[in-house]
This record gives sequence, C-alpha cells and structure tokens, in this order.
Amino acid sequence: MKHKYKNILFVLFFFLVANALQAEDGYRLWQRYDLIDDAGKLNAYKQAIARIQVAGNSPTLTIVKNELSAALQGLLGVVVPVGEGEAVPGAVVAGTPTSSPVIASLQLADRLKAVGEEGYLLLTANTGGKKYTVIAANTDVGVLYGTFHFLRLLQTQQDIHSLSVSSAPKLQKRILNHWDNLDRTVERGYAGFSLWDWHRLPGYIDQRYIDYARANASIGINGTVLTNVNANALILTKEYLVKVKALADVFRPYGLKVYLTARFSAPIEIGGLKTADPLDPQVQAWWKTKADEIYTYVPDFGGFLVKANSEGQPGPQNYGRNHADGANMLADAVADKGGIVMWRAFVYDNEVPDDRAKQAYNEFKPLDGTFRKNVMVQVKNGAIDFQPREPFHPLFGAMPKTPIMMEFQITQEYLGQGTNLVYLSPLFKEVLDSDTYAKGKGSTVAKVIDGTLNNHGLTGIAGVSNIGTDRNWTGHQFGQSNWYSFGRLAWDHNLSSEAIADEWVKMTFTNNNQLVSPVKNMMLGSHEAAVNYMTPLGLHHIMGWSHHYGPGPWIKDKHRADWTSVYYHRATAEGIGFDRTKSGSDAISQYFPPVQKQFGNIKNCPEKYLLWFHHVKWDRKMKSGRTLWDEMCYKYYAGVDSVRQMQQIWNKMESLVDAERFNHIKMFLAIQEQEAVWWRDACLLYFQTFSKRPLPAGFEKPGHPLEYYMQLDPKFAPGI
Amino acid sequence: MKHKYKNILFVLFFFLVANALQAEDGYRLWQRYDLIDDAGKLNAYKQAIARIQVAGNSPTLTIVKNELSAALQGLLGVVVPVGEGEAVPGAVVAGTPTSSPVIASLQLADRLKAVGEEGYLLLTANTGGKKYTVIAANTDVGVLYGTFHFLRLLQTQQDIHSLSVSSAPKLQKRILNHWDNLDRTVERGYAGFSLWDWHRLPGYIDQRYIDYARANASIGINGTVLTNVNANALILTKEYLVKVKALADVFRPYGLKVYLTARFSAPIEIGGLKTADPLDPQVQAWWKTKADEIYTYVPDFGGFLVKANSEGQPGPQNYGRNHADGANMLADAVADKGGIVMWRAFVYDNEVPDDRAKQAYNEFKPLDGTFRKNVMVQVKNGAIDFQPREPFHPLFGAMPKTPIMMEFQITQEYLGQGTNLVYLSPLFKEVLDSDTYAKGKGSTVAKVIDGTLNNHGLTGIAGVSNIGTDRNWTGHQFGQSNWYSFGRLAWDHNLSSEAIADEWVKMTFTNNNQLVSPVKNMMLGSHEAAVNYMTPLGLHHIMGWSHHYGPGPWIKDKHRADWTSVYYHRATAEGIGFDRTKSGSDAISQYFPPVQKQFGNIKNCPEKYLLWFHHVKWDRKMKSGRTLWDEMCYKYYAGVDSVRQMQQIWNKMESLVDAERFNHIKMFLAIQEQEAVWWRDACLLYFQTFSKRPLPAGFEKPGHPLEYYMQLDPKFAPGI
Repeated sequence: MKHKYKNILFVLFFFLVANALQAEDGYRLWQRYDLIDDAGKLNAYKQAIARIQVAGNSPTLTIVKNELSAALQGLLGVVVPVGEGEAVPGAVVAGTPTSSPVIASLQLADRLKAVGEEGYLLLTANTGGKKYTVIAANTDVGVLYGTFHFLRLLQTQQDIHSLSVSSAPKLQKRILNHWDNLDRTVERGYAGFSLWDWHRLPGYIDQRYIDYARANASIGINGTVLTNVNANALILTKEYLVKVKALADVFRPYGLKVYLTARFSAPIEIGGLKTADPLDPQVQAWWKTKADEIYTYVPDFGGFLVKANSEGQPGPQNYGRNHADGANMLADAVADKGGIVMWRAFVYDNEVPDDRAKQAYNEFKPLDGTFRKNVMVQVKNGAIDFQPREPFHPLFGAMPKTPIMMEFQITQEYLGQGTNLVYLSPLFKEVLDSDTYAKGKGSTVAKVIDGTLNNHGLTGIAGVSNIGTDRNWTGHQFGQSNWYSFGRLAWDHNLSSEAIADEWVKMTFTNNNQLVSPVKNMMLGSHEAAVNYMTPLGLHHIMGWSHHYGPGPWIKDKHRADWTSVYYHRATAEGIGFDRTKSGSDAISQYFPPVQKQFGNIKNCPEKYLLWFHHVKWDRKMKSGRTLWDEMCYKYYAGVDSVRQMQQIWNKMESLVDAERFNHIKMFLAIQEQEAVWWRDACLLYFQTFSKRPLPAGFEKPGHPLEYYMQLDPKFAPGI
Repeated sequence: MKHKYKNILFVLFFFLVANALQAEDGYRLWQRYDLIDDAGKLNAYKQAIARIQVAGNSPTLTIVKNELSAALQGLLGVVVPVGEGEAVPGAVVAGTPTSSPVIASLQLADRLKAVGEEGYLLLTANTGGKKYTVIAANTDVGVLYGTFHFLRLLQTQQDIHSLSVSSAPKLQKRILNHWDNLDRTVERGYAGFSLWDWHRLPGYIDQRYIDYARANASIGINGTVLTNVNANALILTKEYLVKVKALADVFRPYGLKVYLTARFSAPIEIGGLKTADPLDPQVQAWWKTKADEIYTYVPDFGGFLVKANSEGQPGPQNYGRNHADGANMLADAVADKGGIVMWRAFVYDNEVPDDRAKQAYNEFKPLDGTFRKNVMVQVKNGAIDFQPREPFHPLFGAMPKTPIMMEFQITQEYLGQGTNLVYLSPLFKEVLDSDTYAKGKGSTVAKVIDGTLNNHGLTGIAGVSNIGTDRNWTGHQFGQSNWYSFGRLAWDHNLSSEAIADEWVKMTFTNNNQLVSPVKNMMLGSHEAAVNYMTPLGLHHIMGWSHHYGPGPWIKDKHRADWTSVYYHRATAEGIGFDRTKSGSDAISQYFPPVQKQFGNIKNCPEKYLLWFHHVKWDRKMKSGRTLWDEMCYKYYAGVDSVRQMQQIWNKMESLVDAERFNHIKMFLAIQEQEAVWWRDACLLYFQTFSKRPLPAGFEKPGHPLEYYMQLDPKFAPGI
C-alpha cells in the first residue's frame, strides 16, 4: 500500500512538473474559449461569423462586446472585427431595440415582450439576402445572457445556421447564498476561504470579483448574498457598507445584485438600542434608516436574508413576536426601494418536544397570508438539513399565499465536502419534480416555487455557494458542475440533469464523445453512489460531530438530542428507522393526503425514503427479496463499488484531458474511495451491533474493528 | 472624492475586463520565461544555445532538464532539442562529474571542491573548437541552483558568451519560517491563508506545493519550517506526519528540507506523560522515539524550530530548567540523523522588571558554550520585534561559542502588512552590515551569522514567510521582491539591494530601462519612506493593538506593559524616547564598547536610532538645524511625500507593464498613501498633545482631530 502510494506520487509528480508552466488549473470554469477542434464545424462557424456588432456603450454592452470579441478569437482562432452600422452578412448583432437600430428594425416587439426583463432571443435573420445572427433582448443584461447562450452553442459545437431561440428565466431571483464570515472563514466552505477580502476593500478590487460576476452571469445567476446567515451586524456599519458598495459596483454590469444578511439584534449591537423588538417603533425606525443608508451606497440593493430564532440566532421570538412580525418589519424598511426579505424557515428547537422534521411546518404554516408582499419564505429542500437525500419539505405547497423560495445547498456539507465527486443536479431535480399534490396531481415543487401553482409574481431560488479562494473556485473540479447546474436549473428547471451535464462536460473538458459520454454517466450516477455509501434507504444525519466530516452513527448524549445521530436512525435490536407515521411522530400528516398515503404506508413508501418515515425490522423483506439488513449492506457496498467504477472510468480519460486536471480528479477520486470505504465499514459495523447479523457472503471484510472508526477524530476538517 | 473614486473604479474595471482572459496575475513570480524582446540578444542566445544535455535521471536532474527545456522554449521562442552524449557546439551541459561524462572530462575537481555541496560553476567550455555552456556541481541540487542562475542571466539579458562563474552559498541553512496553523490560518499572514491544505493531504498534492518548491529552489532556499512557532503538538502525531511526508516528498527533489516546530509540552499533550521536563529521562526518551518516528516518514527531516517560554508558550523554565536544557534535549533526539534544533532567543516577560530589549541577551548570553553542536540560537534582527527599523540585536557577537542564526521577518507585520510597497532588502542589509565590534572593527552581523567571525561550520538564516494562498503568493506584487531578496541574501549577503532589485525587476516586469530604473528607485527608497511615516527617528512599537495594523501610539493600560505603546515612546511634555543609556535602562551596555560609545552618546547616535536609545527634549536641535519636534513632523510628512512620489512614478509605467499588474499595484499604492497619511496624522496629533508645538508652516492639515483616529477600530485585519 505504501509502495503503491509512493509510485503514484512519483508519477503524479512528473506530470505536474511537466505542466507547471501551462497551468490548466480550472480557473476558467466552463468559460473556456479554446480553438474548436472539429475542422468542419470550425469552418462552418467561421463562415457564419464575420463581424461583431454591438450598438451601445453601457457597461453591460461593453462587456458583451469584449466577451464576444475574446470568445470568438479563442474559439475561431481569428480576430473577428467589431463594427457598427447596418448588419453585414455574417454579423453577430447584439443589443436591445433601444440600443441597436438593426434590432429595432426587425419587428421583434411581440417575441421580445414574451421574454421579459431578462430573457432574450437568438435568431438567424435574413434581410435582403444578408444572413446574420441576432442576440436581442429588452435589457442590456438580457443581451448579456443571450450572448453567453450563443457562445455556449459554439462551445458545445451546436448548429447555429438557423437559430430561433426564445429564452426567459422561470424564476425571478436566482441567488447564491455565501456563508462567508467577515474574517474570511466560510461556514461549510470546502474551497478555501471567502472570496471577499474585506480588509483590502474598497481600495483593492481583486480580479476574481469580476471573474466571479462574469461566471454567474454566464449561467443567469442574478443575486448574491455576500454574508453568512449566522450574521455579524458589522456588515451593516458604514465601514463595511463602503466595501459592499465596491463589490456591488463591480457586479452591477453583470446583472448581479447584492443582498446582505441582517442580524436581527443589530439595532442593539450597532444601533445602541435596548431592544430589537420588531413591533417597537424605534426599532422599526432604526431599520428603515439603516435600509435607506444602504441604498445610498447600493442603489439597487436587493434586500435581506434572515436566519432568525434558529440555532442560537436572535429573532422576533426573543420578544414574543412571530416570524411574520420580524420579516414584515424588515420588508417595510426596504419596500419603497424595491427590496425584498428572504426569511428562512429553517427553524427548530431542542426545547420543543416534537420531531425536528415537523417544526418548520408547525411554525410557518399558520403564518401563511400574514407576510408582506415583498417577503419570501426560504425553505430548504428537505425538512432536516441538506442530507444526501431527503423527501421534499412539507412546506412546499402548504403556504399558498406566500411566495416560497427554494434553498438548495451547493456546497457539499453532507455530500463528501471538498473531495467527493457528487453531481447534484439529480438531487435538485428529484426535489423539483416531486409532486406535493397541493392542488391535485402535478402540483410539483417546481410549480410551487416558480409561482405557477399559486400565481405568485415574486419567485426565487437560493443555492448555498460552494465557491472559495481555491484556484478552481470550488475545491473539486467537479464542484464547478454543481454551481453550473444550480444556475442552469434556476433559469429553467425543466432542463434535465443529463442535458446540463452534457453542456458542462463539453464546455469544461472537450466535445470528444469518448470523454463526454462516460464522464456524463459517471456524474449522473454519482449522487446515488454517495447516498449508498453514506445514508442509503432513507437514513439521515449520521455524520461526524459538528464538522459533519465522515461517519458518526454512534453520536449520542450531546447537549441537544436533535444534533445526535441516534435521534435520527433509532436503531434497536429489532430494527432501524424513524417512525414518522401516525404511530410515531406523525410528520407524515404534514403532507397532502396522496403523499401521506404513499410515504406513510410502508408498502408504498419508496425504499429510498423507507427509514426516513418508518422504523423497519431488520429481517423485513425488501423489493429485491433481500432482508433489510442485507439490503443495507448491499447498498453500502454498491456505493463503494460505484466509486471504484468512477475511478476506472476516469483512468481511461487520461489521453483526453490535460494532465493537471486529470491528476487532480484522479487524486480526489482516490480520496473519495477511501472515504466511501470508511463510511461503509463504520456504519455497517455500528449497525451490526444492533442487527447482530453477518455481512452477506462474498463482501470484503472491513479493514478495522468498529472501535477504530469510533476513535477517529479528524481535526480541522477542512480547516478553521 | 466620491466621484473621483467612482471614475477610478470605472477605468480599472475595463482594464481588468479586457485582461480577464489573459491573466497576468503574478503567479509566475520572477520565473517568467517570455520571449526575449531584444532582437540582438535573442539572436545571440539562439546562436549560443542549440541543445540541452543533462546526463542523469534523478528526480532533481529531471527537473533540471524540464526547466531548461521549458525556459529556453519560452525565452528563445524555439524548441531546443534535448540530447545526450558528447557535447556539441552550443550545448548546455548540466550535471555532476558523476552523472555527466562530459563534465567529468573537464577536470573541474579543484573548482568544484571550492563550491561545496550546494555550489556550482557556470562555464563556457571550448573543447577542440566546440564552444558550449557548462552547468556543473558536486550534487544534483547544485546543478539545479546553477540552472536557475543560468536562466536568470538570460532573463536579465546578460552576456553568456564567456562564462566563468563560481558560486557557493555563504550560509548553510536558508530557511523560510511559516507561521502557519493547522487550521490554515497564518499568524501575521497578509497573503490569504496557509498553502498547506492539511485536510486534503496526503491524498491531494496541490500544484502549488510543487511551484512553491521550485520558486524556493530558484533562489537557493533549502529549508522550510511548515508550522507556526506558536506550535500545535498535533503536527507530531502520525495523522499529520503522513501529511508532512507527502510535502517532504514533493519538496525533496528541489533541495528543500522540511522542518517542524516542536511544542515543548507535546510529551504531555500527545504523549500522555505528566511532565515535559527536559531533564526527565521519560521525556527525553519520548522525544527520541518521536524523532525516530519522524525520520521514518521523512528520512532527511531537517529538525525542530522552537519558541519556548515566550509569549505564553511552554518551555524548560516551566520546570526550573534553562533554554540550553530544553534545546539540548531536542538536539540529542535528532543528532544521530543529522537534524538540528533552532531555538529562538525571542523571549521576554512582563514579570521581569527590566527593559524588554534587554531580556533575550540577559537570558541567553550566560548560556553561551552550553548548547549542543547541532543547536542554533535564532535571533531576531533587533531586540524588540521586527520593527520598521531597529538597531541590530546585541546578541549578535555576544555568544561566540554558539552558532547564531538570523531571523528576519519577510511578512510585513510592522511594515504595511498586505498593502504597502516596502522593499525589505535595505532593512536586511542595514542589519547584516552593522558592525558589532565583537572582535574589533569589521565584526559585522553578517560575519557573525556566516560563521567566519567565530569559525562555526553550522550557519543559517531564517525568514518569516510572507507567502499564502493569494494567487500572486504574497498579496502585494512587490511582496515577491522580499521573498526573492531574502533568498538571494541568504545565498550571498554581499549582494547589494540595488543589484537584487535590478534582477528582480527585470525578471518580474521587463528589461526595459524606462521601467527598471525608476521602479528600482522606488523600491530602494520605500523602506525609508515607511520608517518615516510610521516610526521615524528611532520610534518603535506604536502600532495598533494586537493586529498591529495602523497607528496606535496612545495604547496604554493593557495587561502587559510591554505590549503598550507608551512603554516604548515615553512621550512627556519635555520630550520623547526610551532612555536606554546608563541613566535609563542601560540596554546600551549589552553592546561592545565602540557601539556603546556611538549609540550611547546622544551626540554620536545616528538620528535614525535616536529615540530608541535616548529620551530627547522636544526642542533639541537636530543635524538639520530643526528642533526634534519639527524634525519629527518633517519625517512624517516626508514619508507621505515619498509614497506620493512612488504613485507618480508608477503611473508613468502604465504602457510598460500589463494592465492587471499595473492596476493591482496602482490600487495598492493608493491604499498605502491613505495609510501613510493615517499614520502621519494620528501620530503627530497624538505626540502634539505632549509637545504642545504647532506643525511647521506649510504642512497640510490633518484631515480629522485626534479623537477620530483614536476611535478607529479596524476589525478582522487582515482576516481571522
């Protein structure tokens, strides 16, 4: 083993050295504009594209011009001239009817109206025998989005000779949530530290701020919450607002709005008041003044994200008020400037003697209809906490009068953190496609959040960012695909995981199908693999204490029961699982009847959610014919096997990808394999102390006894 | 002001955007191998260089081959073939007499003997009319050092047609000290976070580890202490040693040895012992076993660096033992493997009722002669703590029987931290060239540390690293010059600051003298400028509390007197300065008599050290004819003026340097100007409360009253 490792190191070493001077470090993300390697397509594109015509000089349109210019030079290997005036054959005309006389002349009013503020059209126009490409939108940022779409077509080598694309986002607010602290640590950050170098702001504008905004614009993300939901009130002081302004100024031309987290006790901590009671007129006045001050620095400030009365954060309940009282006060402070409040429903309390999974619903459902119009309730995809797999949160569909915002976690807190290849789009899609039955069959979660189910105009989705200072942005190269997927699904939740992976792989690596197809397969199976080696069959929250790194099913006797593993798996000599049916916590009753029927009946409940909703006997027969214990073993081993298959697939890609990224991913897959084995062995050995059953025949033996795994105590995972 | 700022941002913005795709982010440091832009020189080099001949396949020689190959391709714009066998005309033959028959045939034994283990020869050989270049050394790493020297000649466009260079390092241990914590924070780090990604080691080998080693090798640095002197014992556990091994394996071929900091209480914390008494046989045995264990992972482990009984760190004095007892115990543990112990002399105690400046000398001088042969005492350049300027530490020359190691601080804790352009070579040189008079005139600090004064074979120098995860390694582009200078002076302390700046500027920016000359001037004046706007005339340690960011001359009444500013400046209505003559603390008596005479006599004392050694009346007439108060004002204003001149110089460089680095430096200079004004105004307003004298006529008024500066309370400077 030692020897093997040494050899690998040695080989890697020379690969890395050889490539040191021409770094393929992943910094470019999916925005790679290398020469198109298919001669036929290259030729076709060169014929179709002869000139760039961007009328207008706004900051955003200047970006469009520069982006087209740089991208086409890279992709086509020739300098495409920039011109103005009438469209020439082969022109790429980008603009709005206002900025561009050519576009104004094309009579696109109806089609443009349909795509709204941020949408765009990609068209092949043919005026008097002159064929040219049109990127048209109602706003400059729409043109920018259209430009990135057009470039994506080239990067993925699509046909562009007769374009007729209309595209508009299905969700209004497409927002990254950065859990970034002012000291530059990132809560649940696995890609280095915070991009925001507060100390050197506003004087120093890091190039990464610009590249960050550009990457977000390329996938349609239009908002960013700069600060952690576990908030620090200092961000609302003048000292920091000048820094926030500097970032907002950089982001603005890319259509990226800045939001901040509001610490509920800020009026006390930085305002000198004695209370933060939301019904206190002084407190209300303080927030109004504070909001007005923020708008003097950031005229298009997006609004506040708030975590209140949750995990120790202060909130309105400290004053005997409810969440709506708190949210409405902040909403009133920003309403006249068009700001919104995103109020998180992630609340639970160890003191409340009820299943943690039920508490958010219990607290928020009664408040439906009491929130201001500019409040969104931000709900995590599941009722616990971003587990490898959760059934959809029962609040989706349960608050028809309130705009519900989705909160996904892009950072892989519970999904392998900084080193595991887990493509999250299948997780996102599984939730979005879930049917709440709120208004009968077809009432999917997606329809709840996109406003179509209950006719809401204010819609949104948030993703907890996986971005940090690591050179490749996301720590793991494949982490980039999760940022990408989030953006793409935020724009259009109808896209398939396969289609998104296809785009991403082609843009990030190559169009060569020898790589595209196997790597896509690897990605598409990776979420199920992680679920299998971590928490199969509906198991949840059995990971390491606090840092959540690695397995910890034995965790118990902590100061909060709802932060222990035994609270969730409830393993006994008879069986395992959390009974959330009527005989148990009855969390099931929070779902609409057809869902209750399905999940609540052990016979109908999908096995992937089985132990989420049911306490199940070890020898219960599963659909496979195996007992539950054997099935659990099978799943854990299958998870490890999947990772090994991923390794085999990746090893075959060596000649198709640059050495630096090849080795990076190879090393990470090796770590993932070790961690998967660790999870499998630790969990099965632990659960075996209850089941008292042997591993099925033929399975490799765990490398160590249970005690070994229980005494492991990883420090500084992943750092401070 | 606001409007101006906005305009600057806008202009910067488009510069940055335009360059986003072709990043000149400083990652390449001084190791830039771009095409030589002087056609004549390019031609000459092409004629002189036709083939690379590196006989041997060791990891180090493979690096030599790859480095020459990549560098020559970049610099000459042609692929230089790699060959073997007899030297052909135009060959660059690199190797040792053992690896290369060509070199063996050149009869270089005597010259090679003179350059020792790490030195090298660069020669133009002429064998039977065949002219070729030889890079010869006794060891592979010597060849690597010679290779980088040869490449530097090309990068700086020197003549290479008749080379006859012998070079050997004057100091044996040339070591970076990383004050990096296991949680990836860096104490006094201003360039992001720690390069060492402990969590993902050993599985993930970051490309930066390799590039770090390569950069160090290029300037002859041969050791690195990976961990903070404020040490964590966990680094000595198996869990971390496998990670240390992975780094050591990467660094080894570059000649870079790994050292660790030893937490003195480790036998208790991780060893389960009840004591860490260095005279306890169990403790001694524990360290011996631990050292042996380390050597199983890292066979060429360099040894330990120890901060003991200093600023709260445990040490031998906890057990009534002295520093030699502690150092010798550790030295015995590593002696048989060739390891060394670097024991820091940076000790002082608030409980000791004596001038902090005297304490290290008082404690260590009596121990001279009692240390093991493999112990070095590591002494900071001055007796306080890396101040903008300090007179040399009185321990230099005072311990003739002990190898004394220099500790410089490359990270700019007290010199503008992450944003100020301060070229440190003049500071380093000022100390190295100081005459201790230990053995009469000419007993310079340099001769103390290079072993020539007292005939020591073990010699060394340490630099507290300024390297972090920031893309350009050092936060400020010009911080790179300090890393570079440290390495170059560690190799040869006779180099001038001007010569080092010349090399660095040419390699980092351009050989165009329109840039080289003014930028060199800017660098050479920058240290004096910082001293002037921070602590002129011998003032010291008057910076902000704890983070040391910005001015804080008013700091008093803290739990330790020796951590306050008033302890150091001692301003009164009559005058200012710390009397360290016989009438005061008598620290002066720690120097040899000729130095005592000079520094101790207010008439002879160089004014740059005046307030270090003397309490001086406000109206004392200075050499300039001005009163002390007026002179102090003059110096503070001159410091700010110097920064403004640097800005003017830099602004003229716009056409000569890429936009990204131009703007980076421009932004940082603007921050530096603001900070210099802040320092000037805060200090002068504060000292004015004692001097009761007006600012001299014609000086611009401070922007705010003293109270404004006193209430500033920068948070998170520079981060956690």
